[in-house]
Amino acid sequence: MEIVKRTPQMKALAERLRDEGQRIGIVPTMGALHSGHMSLMQRARQMSDIVVVTIFINPIQFGPAEDLERYPRDLAADAEMCVSRGVDYIFAPLIDEVYPENFSSYVIVEGLSDRLCGASREGHFRGVTTVVSKLFNIVKPHFAFFGRKDAQQAVIIKRMVADLCMDAEIVVCPIVRDDDGLALSSRNVYLSSEERGAATVLHRALEKAQVLFGDGTRDAETLRTAMDELIASEPLVRIDYIEIVDAHDLEPVQAIEDGHPTLIALAAFVGKTRLIDNVVLNGEI
Amino acid sequence: MEIVKRTPQMKALAERLRDEGQRIGIVPTMGALHSGHMSLMQRARQMSDIVVVTIFINPIQFGPAEDLERYPRDLAADAEMCVSRGVDYIFAPLIDEVYPENFSSYVIVEGLSDRLCGASREGHFRGVTTVVSKLFNIVKPHFAFFGRKDAQQAVIIKRMVADLCMDAEIVVCPIVRDDDGLALSSRNVYLSSEERGAATVLHRALEKAQVLFGDGTRDAETLRTAMDELIASEPLVRIDYIEIVDAHDLEPVQAIEDGHPTLIALAAFVGKTRLIDNVVLNGEI
Repeated sequence: MEIVKRTPQMKALAERLRDEGQRIGIVPTMGALHSGHMSLMQRARQMSDIVVVTIFINPIQFGPAEDLERYPRDLAADAEMCVSRGVDYIFAPLIDEVYPENFSSYVIVEGLSDRLCGASREGHFRGVTTVVSKLFNIVKPHFAFFGRKDAQQAVIIKRMVADLCMDAEIVVCPIVRDDDGLALSSRNVYLSSEERGAATVLHRALEKAQVLFGDGTRDAETLRTAMDELIASEPLVRIDYIEIVDAHDLEPVQAIEDGHPTLIALAAFVGKTRLIDNVVLNGEI
Repeated sequence: MEIVKRTPQMKALAERLRDEGQRIGIVPTMGALHSGHMSLMQRARQMSDIVVVTIFINPIQFGPAEDLERYPRDLAADAEMCVSRGVDYIFAPLIDEVYPENFSSYVIVEGLSDRLCGASREGHFRGVTTVVSKLFNIVKPHFAFFGRKDAQQAVIIKRMVADLCMDAEIVVCPIVRDDDGLALSSRNVYLSSEERGAATVLHRALEKAQVLFGDGTRDAETLRTAMDELIASEPLVRIDYIEIVDAHDLEPVQAIEDGHPTLIALAAFVGKTRLIDNVVLNGEI
């Protein structure tokens, strides 16, 4: 495995690989890799000739009050994990090459980016779509692998790729959970052991909604209230949002219709740590 | 020469050409081709193995009060002109494929897009950068040819390509003028013969600035006033702006410095027709 840090080098490499007819798979990450990322790498390994994991903590997707400074960093451990999953290249670009002085171009997806997490994280998705566009232009992937934990991100990137006629096929992979049900996230390391216990209520709330749905409940408000009440029973957890939306356009639904993929997404602060989780009913995003 | 109308077909074709090692040159146009476009095609023919002229009247770069409806259209004449210049493909995509329902992704270049023409044409450059990004993703050009008449557009597209790590090398070609000095534009057909005569004052004003500059004048305000006075002597012409700016970041300059490429750009209404023109001192954009 090789670690590439310079953008022109990665671009030339990708160009050469494409010329050779190799199918390139990209796994864009911010590092602090965990088993969720590993599952993306495995899927990438199955579908691609060449697997490129990108590691870049993207400053423009963090708000001023967010955790950019303390976001976990450990390139050595990340590299080891990548080797263990048969990754061919890590692309870990330099910040000054990604955002040189005078940088002023952005890729935006209107509407979809303003809802759910976008409502409380202004500019977040613009940061995501901009950096993903850049990474796609540099790495020239045939396939790009994203986790469904960031469901809204996956929906937005799919829309961006379709709207702007980008080449990459977006592959959305299942959420990976710890034994206690907590969705894996690089931010879980922020949790105290008490918070960690409390955080499982997010998963339990989603399971409760699934059970109610399985028993025939279709009214979104009923589902939301049930989740709301369960989460409210945990004093360490403060809900940011619980939304029940169409899984493709993220528009709120009143009643879940058969055959319509529907996303139940939530975000909550557990102590100072903001976590997200979701389930999809009636299909996939 | 072949005319391609479907996006997936053009994408597959470009992919195949790239795989064959062909160097692709794109000339993005809105049709109504004239000798200015022909000079772009000639340059493209010299530099590329395959020349693709795109013809698409891009609705999202027109303001609500602008001339989208009456913009001149003549695909047959355009095709003839392309054949005469050895063009390989015209890509004339269908509007519903370029902007399907739910289209919501845009490429923006902040700052540069708000000045000069951007100040009076809100959203114009966002429309341009978005459609050019799409065309680049579809046609996958090695080179892209733009006329320097749209100097701000060229500056913005260069910035977009650099910022977002796009592949195309941007080639900016000289302004082509009629015998009376008027810069060629598809919009010149709107002019009455009286307006047509009056419109030459734009070119004469730029020439006057060049003469003053040649004689040693460096103060931007002096140059602007001289141009302003000359243009004001034509009652059919109303100035939108005259700007003297750095040719790379489009920031206004007070005094033109030796060795610093400087753009003198203007826009004016001649009757109801908005025309633009420019010169670059001390180099190129």
